[in-house]
Amino acid sequence: MSALLPAARLLLSPRCAAPRLLRPTSSAAATAVPQTAVLMLNMGGPARREDVHDFLLRLFSDTDIINLPMQNRLGPWIARRRTPAIQEKYAEIGGGSPILRWTNLQGELMCRRLDELSPDTAPHKHFVAFRYVHPLTEDALPEVVASGARRLVLFSQYPQYSCATTGSSINALHAYCRENPLPAELRLSVIDRWPTHPGLARSFAANIHAELAKLPADAREKVVLLFSAHSLPLRAVSRGDPYPAEVGATVQAVMAELGHAYPYRLVWQSKVGPLPWMEPATDAAIEAMAKRGHKHLMLVPISFVNEHIETLHELDIEYAKDLGEKTGASIYRVPAPNDHPEFIEALADIVKTHLESGEGVRPQLLMTCPMCTNPACYPAKRWVGETAGLR
Amino acid sequence: MSALLPAARLLLSPRCAAPRLLRPTSSAAATAVPQTAVLMLNMGGPARREDVHDFLLRLFSDTDIINLPMQNRLGPWIARRRTPAIQEKYAEIGGGSPILRWTNLQGELMCRRLDELSPDTAPHKHFVAFRYVHPLTEDALPEVVASGARRLVLFSQYPQYSCATTGSSINALHAYCRENPLPAELRLSVIDRWPTHPGLARSFAANIHAELAKLPADAREKVVLLFSAHSLPLRAVSRGDPYPAEVGATVQAVMAELGHAYPYRLVWQSKVGPLPWMEPATDAAIEAMAKRGHKHLMLVPISFVNEHIETLHELDIEYAKDLGEKTGASIYRVPAPNDHPEFIEALADIVKTHLESGEGVRPQLLMTCPMCTNPACYPAKRWVGETAGLR
Repeated sequence: MSALLPAARLLLSPRCAAPRLLRPTSSAAATAVPQTAVLMLNMGGPARREDVHDFLLRLFSDTDIINLPMQNRLGPWIARRRTPAIQEKYAEIGGGSPILRWTNLQGELMCRRLDELSPDTAPHKHFVAFRYVHPLTEDALPEVVASGARRLVLFSQYPQYSCATTGSSINALHAYCRENPLPAELRLSVIDRWPTHPGLARSFAANIHAELAKLPADAREKVVLLFSAHSLPLRAVSRGDPYPAEVGATVQAVMAELGHAYPYRLVWQSKVGPLPWMEPATDAAIEAMAKRGHKHLMLVPISFVNEHIETLHELDIEYAKDLGEKTGASIYRVPAPNDHPEFIEALADIVKTHLESGEGVRPQLLMTCPMCTNPACYPAKRWVGETAGLR
Repeated sequence: MSALLPAARLLLSPRCAAPRLLRPTSSAAATAVPQTAVLMLNMGGPARREDVHDFLLRLFSDTDIINLPMQNRLGPWIARRRTPAIQEKYAEIGGGSPILRWTNLQGELMCRRLDELSPDTAPHKHFVAFRYVHPLTEDALPEVVASGARRLVLFSQYPQYSCATTGSSINALHAYCRENPLPAELRLSVIDRWPTHPGLARSFAANIHAELAKLPADAREKVVLLFSAHSLPLRAVSRGDPYPAEVGATVQAVMAELGHAYPYRLVWQSKVGPLPWMEPATDAAIEAMAKRGHKHLMLVPISFVNEHIETLHELDIEYAKDLGEKTGASIYRVPAPNDHPEFIEALADIVKTHLESGEGVRPQLLMTCPMCTNPACYPAKRWVGETAGLR
């Protein structure tokens, strides 16, 4: 474990607030030309109130995750209409999403650890490409190129692959690179999923143990773990989106770490719109279980690696607080992996193992879903297959 | 690995035919009073044409898996109506289901290995309790009691738990034991699921490697693995049935064994009735993938551990043969774990680890689904909780 990690933790404010960034160190690695760039892919969230509209506009315009009739007109209309309510939610969690600051902190700590673990590929430097707020793909890739890095690792920050998340990021990268080809000398490779990495499971288990340790013994004996993942429209699942199966795999890996010592269920949160999504829904499950006498429920956000609106508002306020009061249940919440030392170690290990393996991209990423209906997917996958690992 | 295993394999006829049973050995273990009885729970299948009707009658009468209006009249009607067509399917696979013979072979080999691995709990003896054909629960439990065993391990032969499979078996055991209590001196414990046991993953991976090795190199490079599991009504999934998540976990464990070297998808087979079930369906996925140019597909039955009608007829005849001809794709089929030495070793290891741990039943089995609607579940789970490991 890096000696820097405990110090880094001291710089952090509590869970709900965004972490402050580490100051750059004076080490050579922080200023030298990176050999290896690690591009951390995620959806992002609006850091400030005035970013909410553009965030929603990009989200509702993304045909990889939402399909609306007349989307180029209906998308902007929905974004405008929803902006005030979403701004209100962000105001309730301190004004904005902490996802960029968490990602930057994770990236910094990961790269410091990688410099120790993998000196042959050092210096390592992280970059961030979000889908719906800056830094976007078009912000990040020129920076990577300008850095002079010789290798670029696309590292999805979603442990489980979905066409709506990692798939959308890959499609955006392809769209950008079609117009702005990467330099031929930049070697590209991809880490597209890591749902059962032991370090990921260990960091969730460590956080669960820490929350359980805060409970009195009688509550701990009665607690039910509710692993809550972002839901997905059934239409996407039926096309073959691998996400639900991979989330299930993460849950099993965490429960194995916990010695299967607690009852648990996997439930699904954050449905939007009228179509059927994966169920049971987190809120409905909380209400049903409280009614059955389960009065100690512990929410574990299993599909995101840092705090964001769906943990800080939906889990903490709408469920733990509001539904807790309504149902009389005590609802606890396990933090996202954030900067847990086990998690930083996992991130570094995933990249190190990937770099050592020499792999470009795994075959699974190159295949579309059996019933794929998105015309962007196949060309993007072909581009990845032709580009990654072959430069 | 037991020295008996290679010899046992020689006694077997090819995959589609049922295995012949091993002759009892002259060892003391085979005739002595067992210390540990292992009751292997599964659904079972009709071994003979004349068993088909009663099999269907029990299946369509089981309110744990099917809910029909006026089920006590509609169930028997459907069973009668479907009998000829199902008899026809069994005729096409050699006249009957091999599931009892496979289970007995697995049980014999497992117990021999257990006698070596765990002499303190020997002799071990397997028993079989099926849900829909003899030996039923009411056949098996009196035999266990009469055997003089001091411990009874309920061992679900479904690696992944579903309310429709293991749950139904537990409910049946409870219904029987309510009327016919087990002797107080018989210590009961439960192995309810093992979706990511390394030996299970290894046996699937070994079988996949063996099938791949039969292909010419160019086919092997193009092959897509289709893990096919028995589907489930979405209604059950939405209530919180843990099955889909656990099947997803098995798939990840197998792919990790295979070094993620092949593209794959998890698809769902054997839907019946008009309601929505989990998708993508295996047949629809085969057709869609063949249309996209995937002409080498390998079916892996991931939710059953021995051959049965859904592998021998649905996968081999309806999909590999008929859909293969229709789509022009070459469709290969990986055998179920059956008597693969890695699998027998896994079965023995699961029981040995369970016996060593002293565990009665894991907390997960004792909790109903959040939206459970089956009045049999909660009392059965309470009975298990009060009985298992506490005698």
